[in-house]
Amino acid sequence: MSPLDSLDNGTTMEEAERTVFFVSDHTGITAEVLGHSLLARFEGVIFHYLTRPFIDSPEKVRALIEEIGGVEGPRPLVFNTISDPALSAQLREAEALFLDFFAPYLEPLAAELGSAPSSRVGRYHSIIDLARYQMRMDAVDFALTTDDGLGAQHYGRADLILVGVSRAGKTPTCLFLGLQYGIRAANYPLAEDEFERMRLPEALAPFKEKVFGLTIDPVRLHQIRRERKPNSSYASLERCDFEVKQAEALFRATKTPFLNTTTSSVEEIAATLMHAAGLKRRLY
Amino acid sequence: MSPLDSLDNGTTMEEAERTVFFVSDHTGITAEVLGHSLLARFEGVIFHYLTRPFIDSPEKVRALIEEIGGVEGPRPLVFNTISDPALSAQLREAEALFLDFFAPYLEPLAAELGSAPSSRVGRYHSIIDLARYQMRMDAVDFALTTDDGLGAQHYGRADLILVGVSRAGKTPTCLFLGLQYGIRAANYPLAEDEFERMRLPEALAPFKEKVFGLTIDPVRLHQIRRERKPNSSYASLERCDFEVKQAEALFRATKTPFLNTTTSSVEEIAATLMHAAGLKRRLY
Repeated sequence: MSPLDSLDNGTTMEEAERTVFFVSDHTGITAEVLGHSLLARFEGVIFHYLTRPFIDSPEKVRALIEEIGGVEGPRPLVFNTISDPALSAQLREAEALFLDFFAPYLEPLAAELGSAPSSRVGRYHSIIDLARYQMRMDAVDFALTTDDGLGAQHYGRADLILVGVSRAGKTPTCLFLGLQYGIRAANYPLAEDEFERMRLPEALAPFKEKVFGLTIDPVRLHQIRRERKPNSSYASLERCDFEVKQAEALFRATKTPFLNTTTSSVEEIAATLMHAAGLKRRLY
Repeated sequence: MSPLDSLDNGTTMEEAERTVFFVSDHTGITAEVLGHSLLARFEGVIFHYLTRPFIDSPEKVRALIEEIGGVEGPRPLVFNTISDPALSAQLREAEALFLDFFAPYLEPLAAELGSAPSSRVGRYHSIIDLARYQMRMDAVDFALTTDDGLGAQHYGRADLILVGVSRAGKTPTCLFLGLQYGIRAANYPLAEDEFERMRLPEALAPFKEKVFGLTIDPVRLHQIRRERKPNSSYASLERCDFEVKQAEALFRATKTPFLNTTTSSVEEIAATLMHAAGLKRRLY
């Protein structure tokens, strides 16, 4: 949720602003992800987000409490994922609404699983750690090697091959699938050749069952391309409209399942594709 | 946490296995991220993860309850992020340990913020939505354009420039910074030229304050390179050891701050760099 979101909501600035701290003894990503999901439901407030990762000592907690206390206006929100109970208890002293994302779940999980949680995340065995790293790197390398129609000789190893017009969101989706899920996704841009023949590119023929289409609203595509190449015929609304219509006709003619990316984030597109293709994460 | 993690922990398979459902009316990523953080603390259990995204109707909940009920062995764990209270209540009927990641926080947040949560995530204004999309795409494009020493003419726009030996983790880190944070990160590979001169590459000189080094344990580097080019001199332990020593000497000689990536995930490296460079996310 961007602060800009609520600029014109009619409330005064002071009433509607709130500072939010995402606190972690690690990267802070867990706190950020859950915190944003929750706060996206409160539309009348302008949130100022501050992530405070690697808070892993009493000194750092003390400094953070001071920083929180120094915030002007209404008391901040603190989303906590510090796992050490003593440090969490110390942070609870801060002048803030304190919400803990870990503690409430550890007890029922411990009771259910019949074992006490370790205070630190278990270190992976180094061999498994390496295997995970390799899998992720392999998937990212795969996306780079097979980006934009390149490396068709590797399609046999692909989990997915995305097709669509230029700037429909193929490349970031492939990279995200690699980084987040360890999925090997290639992509191939549709252009004149395919539109004239109303067939998928030759290179894709043997891999039909892995092929998914991405499409996009022509006006949105026009806006995106204009940003990249202003005043080009490539970015013209007419051209965008033509390409999108042709691509969708091609998807229908070839019975290629396709997805409209216009109002979706890369995360949403990726999750939808995983689901539609029945793929399982290689990474957790 | 990989299931392989606990294969040799001495408990019988049946006692130590547990199926985990990440349930969402959206992508499921929030449930996955928090669920994994929590379960990583329980080392003696083999978890089987199943993500069930886009559960947004009573029919889908009903089908899921049936799937959960059909799991053999001890009752599954269900991590829920469905926001609709009626659907959540329905899912609670499942034969499982039900943990809700949303409901417990919405009430205190509503009380604190003095407004009721909307049942659906607010739609972004389409102009802000587009701006976010462009920012993210721009950062990903930037990482691709300036990967591996390319596109030095764009360094003026970089937020960060990573340097290090081949396969130290530069490319995935740059892509992750772009996708996750909207940060523009370039990378430049260190090689003979730089080692001989014990200086940073010319192209980086005007941007010294944006330059961060990545280093890695030579044995780990050897394992990673060997996977890529088996039996090459590029992958030999001797060569890896030499390059890492030279790179670290260069970082010290040029007072370039650097980070060891050996035991860190891409997320951790990225979060550490954000913190060290004092960068703020461009994306939430």
